[in-house]
Amino acid sequence: MSDPADPRFMRLAISLGTRGLGRVWPNPAVGCVIVQGTRIVGRGWTQPGGRPHAERRALDQAGAQARGATAYVSLEPCAHHGKTPPCAQALIAAGVARVVTALTDPDPRVEGNGHAMLRAAGVEVIEGVCADAAHAANAGFLSRITRGRPLVTLKLALTLDGRIATATGESRWITGAAARRMVHGMRANHDAVLVGVGTALADDPDLRVRDLGVAHQPVRLIADSTLRLPPDSRLGRTARDVPVGVLHGMTAPRAAQDAWAATGARLIACNSDADRQLDMADALSQLAVLGLTRILCEGGGTLAATLLRQGLVDRLICISAGKVIGGDGISAVAPMGLRALQDAAGFDLTESRTLGDDVMHSWVRRAG
Amino acid sequence: MSDPADPRFMRLAISLGTRGLGRVWPNPAVGCVIVQGTRIVGRGWTQPGGRPHAERRALDQAGAQARGATAYVSLEPCAHHGKTPPCAQALIAAGVARVVTALTDPDPRVEGNGHAMLRAAGVEVIEGVCADAAHAANAGFLSRITRGRPLVTLKLALTLDGRIATATGESRWITGAAARRMVHGMRANHDAVLVGVGTALADDPDLRVRDLGVAHQPVRLIADSTLRLPPDSRLGRTARDVPVGVLHGMTAPRAAQDAWAATGARLIACNSDADRQLDMADALSQLAVLGLTRILCEGGGTLAATLLRQGLVDRLICISAGKVIGGDGISAVAPMGLRALQDAAGFDLTESRTLGDDVMHSWVRRAG
Repeated sequence: MSDPADPRFMRLAISLGTRGLGRVWPNPAVGCVIVQGTRIVGRGWTQPGGRPHAERRALDQAGAQARGATAYVSLEPCAHHGKTPPCAQALIAAGVARVVTALTDPDPRVEGNGHAMLRAAGVEVIEGVCADAAHAANAGFLSRITRGRPLVTLKLALTLDGRIATATGESRWITGAAARRMVHGMRANHDAVLVGVGTALADDPDLRVRDLGVAHQPVRLIADSTLRLPPDSRLGRTARDVPVGVLHGMTAPRAAQDAWAATGARLIACNSDADRQLDMADALSQLAVLGLTRILCEGGGTLAATLLRQGLVDRLICISAGKVIGGDGISAVAPMGLRALQDAAGFDLTESRTLGDDVMHSWVRRAG
Repeated sequence: MSDPADPRFMRLAISLGTRGLGRVWPNPAVGCVIVQGTRIVGRGWTQPGGRPHAERRALDQAGAQARGATAYVSLEPCAHHGKTPPCAQALIAAGVARVVTALTDPDPRVEGNGHAMLRAAGVEVIEGVCADAAHAANAGFLSRITRGRPLVTLKLALTLDGRIATATGESRWITGAAARRMVHGMRANHDAVLVGVGTALADDPDLRVRDLGVAHQPVRLIADSTLRLPPDSRLGRTARDVPVGVLHGMTAPRAAQDAWAATGARLIACNSDADRQLDMADALSQLAVLGLTRILCEGGGTLAATLLRQGLVDRLICISAGKVIGGDGISAVAPMGLRALQDAAGFDLTESRTLGDDVMHSWVRRAG
């Protein structure tokens, strides 16, 4: 007989759930494992577009073997009728004897109702198994629900002395092929990729995931308070192929707004300050309303500085190349106007590894 | 019966040798293991000050058991009468049957003569065992002999965006206690610690090894082309306790030279360019003549940029704190005037690990 709440099965469920990251928004990326005794009889994860849900997939796979089984779900099963019937109901109908979950779904339509519905039907419920791991895996969804903004990951690919280009602007390539491949992988598991207008003007980027056989592309976002990027830029020209969102200030020229709207891009008007710098907190809250849960910011330095100064960077991925360019090179982060060292945002290391000739380290914002 | 040249014993010999690093200059930091069958009967390493040599120590420990034994030595035994009789002679006199070495000593007074002396006396000699590891361990000594300059390690303790202080100059502490402890350990295994005058003026550093119970202190060097650092600075006041070397330009004020000489510091006049920047290649060659083999440069940004631009940095130790200060912070490396990215010095990662809340990565200059 197995442990009534074996954390190994929950870790598997969480891991399965992460397969959906970047492709299931506005829904959470949930995983589900159904176990009879010690044997896995069903596995599922939230499908691209956000449905079917993980539990539905796992139950379909388990069929009659779900009866009397234990279902491990990385998030509380939903209890409300959305575009699909509630998963709590489906688990009950399949005759599952016990449901083990990692987290309560903070979505006000669920928030304990899923657990309650199961218990009311006589299903044993065990909560909070591997809660930290599930929290980390679903940090984007949880951020959108509880903080009203997506999780923001800032990627910095830089030299050992913090530069992203020489004084003359040469930047291809600071980091190597393995690093670029990793960045494309990161794009694929984020709902959206964001760049500032300076980077967009300099590089005319496409921001699509390339060379990974990925069907689903992230939304492409540009922060461009005065709409300086031409609508015939690569982003503008491809806005009907893969969605583009343009974060702009309220006072951006009307003609430019019209021209961008004509490309098929979605215009998102945001507050901005006297210097016409976008209020990124406002921008992010609008993106959360649109359903985005995970945003990868790929620079440049001005946008990075704004996000950092406003305390909006949750995770930092640094890819350092073994090169030194010197203080006349272009900084990865623009001036932040910090008065004291203690005002600098602090991050804790979560992972460090080599990527070809480069080294990657991941950091999360220090609590408090 | 053991392998006639077991690499495990050589690795031990090399490791023993490294105990002398920072304390044996101008001599190499050699290790020696004497093995009877598979049993170690003697171990030795070059003692502080450079003698007794490793072989002498190991032979003394082995005593009569050296007869017929195999001696593993991380560098070719010396063949010349210096302040001690040649080690090759001592090995022969002790009746050692076989000598295994990792490297030929490039010192022109040895350069194969040690091996030849042993063979002429009927001792079997096996060369080149673990040559790469021995080369890495003795890179400083080898650099002094073959390139006429010490090995230069540049330490950079910086934020994720390459800053060493805020715009207002606040820099204590960017990195944490574990990083500082590691830096003191690095000081202890280098022959000398070098800083630029800007850092010396800003921090009035002592540059001694603290809190490690180390008796031997590295030489303290300052690069100060016009002798701006006051002789009553901490370095000047303590120059009779631990040696201080002052690298200055030929045109530095005579009065300042006299005042520094009066502190007990050694003045080292170097070439400089029209901007009064020291020619660090000249400075390093003079330091090699004085016997220094391993120099740790602890900044600041101007000296780091000069050394990097002149291709004089052999190893780079980056200690990154999980903080971002922004582009108005003080750069770890001053402007280098690079025209193209391919002109940037390239380094290869050799090690990466966490140090408390910080991450340390070591790099060596890419060959070619």
